[in-house]
Amino acid sequence: MSKQQIGVIGMAVMGKNLALNIESRGYSVSIFNRTGERTKEVAAEHPDKKLVPTYTVEEFVASLEQPRKIMLMVKAGKATDLTIQSLLPHLDKGDILIDGGNTFFKDTIRRNEELADSGINFIGTGVSGGEEGALKGPSIMPGGQKEAYDLVAPIFEKIAAVAEEDGEPCVTYIGPNGAGHYVKMAHNGIEYGDMQLIAESYDIMSRLLGLSVDEMADIFKEWNTGELDSYLIEITADILTHKDEETGKPIVDVILDTAGNKGTGKWTSQSALDLGVPLPLITESVFARYISAMKDERVEASSKIKGVDVQNFTGDKKVFIEKIREALYFSKIMSYAQGFAQLRIASEEYGWDLQYGNIAKIFRAGCIIRAKFLQKITDAYDRNPELKNLLLDDYFNDVTQRYQQSVREVVAAAIQAGVPVPTFSSAIAYYDSYRSADLPANIIQAQRDYFGAHTFERKDKEGIFHHEWYVD
Amino acid sequence: MSKQQIGVIGMAVMGKNLALNIESRGYSVSIFNRTGERTKEVAAEHPDKKLVPTYTVEEFVASLEQPRKIMLMVKAGKATDLTIQSLLPHLDKGDILIDGGNTFFKDTIRRNEELADSGINFIGTGVSGGEEGALKGPSIMPGGQKEAYDLVAPIFEKIAAVAEEDGEPCVTYIGPNGAGHYVKMAHNGIEYGDMQLIAESYDIMSRLLGLSVDEMADIFKEWNTGELDSYLIEITADILTHKDEETGKPIVDVILDTAGNKGTGKWTSQSALDLGVPLPLITESVFARYISAMKDERVEASSKIKGVDVQNFTGDKKVFIEKIREALYFSKIMSYAQGFAQLRIASEEYGWDLQYGNIAKIFRAGCIIRAKFLQKITDAYDRNPELKNLLLDDYFNDVTQRYQQSVREVVAAAIQAGVPVPTFSSAIAYYDSYRSADLPANIIQAQRDYFGAHTFERKDKEGIFHHEWYVD
Repeated sequence: MSKQQIGVIGMAVMGKNLALNIESRGYSVSIFNRTGERTKEVAAEHPDKKLVPTYTVEEFVASLEQPRKIMLMVKAGKATDLTIQSLLPHLDKGDILIDGGNTFFKDTIRRNEELADSGINFIGTGVSGGEEGALKGPSIMPGGQKEAYDLVAPIFEKIAAVAEEDGEPCVTYIGPNGAGHYVKMAHNGIEYGDMQLIAESYDIMSRLLGLSVDEMADIFKEWNTGELDSYLIEITADILTHKDEETGKPIVDVILDTAGNKGTGKWTSQSALDLGVPLPLITESVFARYISAMKDERVEASSKIKGVDVQNFTGDKKVFIEKIREALYFSKIMSYAQGFAQLRIASEEYGWDLQYGNIAKIFRAGCIIRAKFLQKITDAYDRNPELKNLLLDDYFNDVTQRYQQSVREVVAAAIQAGVPVPTFSSAIAYYDSYRSADLPANIIQAQRDYFGAHTFERKDKEGIFHHEWYVD
Repeated sequence: MSKQQIGVIGMAVMGKNLALNIESRGYSVSIFNRTGERTKEVAAEHPDKKLVPTYTVEEFVASLEQPRKIMLMVKAGKATDLTIQSLLPHLDKGDILIDGGNTFFKDTIRRNEELADSGINFIGTGVSGGEEGALKGPSIMPGGQKEAYDLVAPIFEKIAAVAEEDGEPCVTYIGPNGAGHYVKMAHNGIEYGDMQLIAESYDIMSRLLGLSVDEMADIFKEWNTGELDSYLIEITADILTHKDEETGKPIVDVILDTAGNKGTGKWTSQSALDLGVPLPLITESVFARYISAMKDERVEASSKIKGVDVQNFTGDKKVFIEKIREALYFSKIMSYAQGFAQLRIASEEYGWDLQYGNIAKIFRAGCIIRAKFLQKITDAYDRNPELKNLLLDDYFNDVTQRYQQSVREVVAAAIQAGVPVPTFSSAIAYYDSYRSADLPANIIQAQRDYFGAHTFERKDKEGIFHHEWYVD
């Protein structure tokens, strides 16, 4: 009996679509699911495909060419550990487990270590692009043993999305152990930021300028033809054209304003906090989702707390809309500057040797944050692979200097009109902090030395100092 | 040989001062330190005190009345575990270990559990007030077995700070296992926020208004006579009067603007992220410290990135200073509203039954965030113990409504002048988000449903929905 080239475990939508994607590139694929019914179902739905259903772990493992390539597409967490444990007795040295779930990177580091003794390779792999991406071409972020990844690379390079600019597949070896899942996590954090920035732009246009949903659809559509050209802007424009079938209203007007989350944005912020990296914009976007989830409390508060009344906008709307666009692009740059600075510190901390330009490259297609703009990041790292912060690159420095005035005006106007702009205002605070040779943290250090003898450094010479505050 | 009433392990400055404080209230205290020299030194420094030096763990334990009360004042983390392990063979059922370190609350939960089988009580206790507080009267936040705490309470009530308002000691039983250390952590997070808000106020006055250090000293001194009356405002006023001996300059002008941190602010933010509680202000203050620590990078950036030039302030400075004061008080309220909302969710999550009014009460003296203002929080919870958010209380609602315009103006002016105000702007964003019945998270939910079929709820009826975005 002939063996299959790769196996996929977990036939929920992401696993199924990824299996179909792999099969469509000419590979034979064994499929397995905890409940056999589901496996049967998937096989029956696609009788013409080289998807070979298997119903026990033994059968699944035995059906694969050696070294075996097994893609785990199960729920991140305990299910991943259980699946690995069930596979382990049947595997051989050199086999390759590929975890394609949204796994916390520290779990991937642990699993990679735990499996190392038995000679089983473990490729923790970020997969972005949602259901659609999994089926037609995701962005793929593999981390783990390089030599093992090389054996999988031909498959991944075929199933990945392809960048329009140069036809390159959106996959690259990210680094050892947890590097792939870390980059996927950071990608998701950036996605949170992008989405919140778009939401705030919409809110300003809606509440401050009083624009209609149709008008905003046109604006986002236009924005998508320029610097902001990206998947999220594109779908926002499309979303705004959709009507609710029942009520005939724009669908966005009936959708409840409570944003869910699956925890990857939170992890990104928590990791930044651990690494000592400032990541305010993404973190504000996570908190914005949390506030959104407090719908009942907000409704109660809205009747009790009288804020400022939004006044009719009296300026030139067209001019102001362009300022919002510039503010959005500016703030997006702040978010990516923070996110890529986080990758740099994480790379140092965990010894990953991340290639930032390549990472931006594989985000150009397939994934949720795909955007024309990412090429600019790759270009920046091509110019200087050791770049400490995107804001120090000429392109980003130039565009943010030109657009800063718009952010200042838009944020000031929104705040005075009572429209919350947590990420927009966080963006300008980061910019002004980063370019400040002197910050007021001298006050904080003085306070810490005053109440806790925590000591301080001096501006005029090296050393550690303590001031005698209590001397009369 | 007579036995001592309590023992203190760890003779670094906090442990020593706490031992001296306890002794000063009429208790006999056994002291012990990992290195005997230090124990000897402390005993020799205070020959007239009832501090009994001991030099082995056995001797230390044997010197104590039963049930033994042992205060651990060692470095949080591994040292705490090692100390507990060294004590354990010598302890008896019913003995009480009190961890007074800055311990992560989950470690306290774990230790409380681990010791439960052996019948050893474990009181994780937050101690705030720095060296000075430890010696003269700290604010104390004990968590653990209530019946064990009751045996320690008489001592704690004597050594704690005393609130001026009513003469009550700043200590109260917080709740089971990790509750005390959690509240101490939240206290420290709030402290980060308070300090950053003061630093931003100083920065606005310095950079935007061009005030001198002496002028600012007077302003903080005046602020300390009103609503802002607090330890941190008081010491800021004092700090600004201190001169550097070497240069004769104000000391704040020679102190390097890189703020350190010991991790408790970070923990507070990470816990909020885990609990799904919005805590943007404190988190921005943690990130502000991180940015401050990037001094070399900021200096480099300051020469490359041309921001906006701060223009001479042309308005009425006195009027604007009062607006800064109102903005500071407003923002402080936002921070405490967020922090106390976090306590509420943590209390539910961990089953602590926290008494928010009592917690605010014990912050009134002894600790770093002590302030007149805390009485207002106690009053609010007295009016409504189930209060979901301080902003829904009449006092806080009234004062924030009256002061909101000042925050809007101060933040807008700072942003337009290029002065970073991460926590001030975060405060107004929180206020405007919290009082918004509708937020633009409908856009985020639409996007999530579009690319990931994550579903959404509707504004007009119950249920979980998915829209068919791809139908032509």
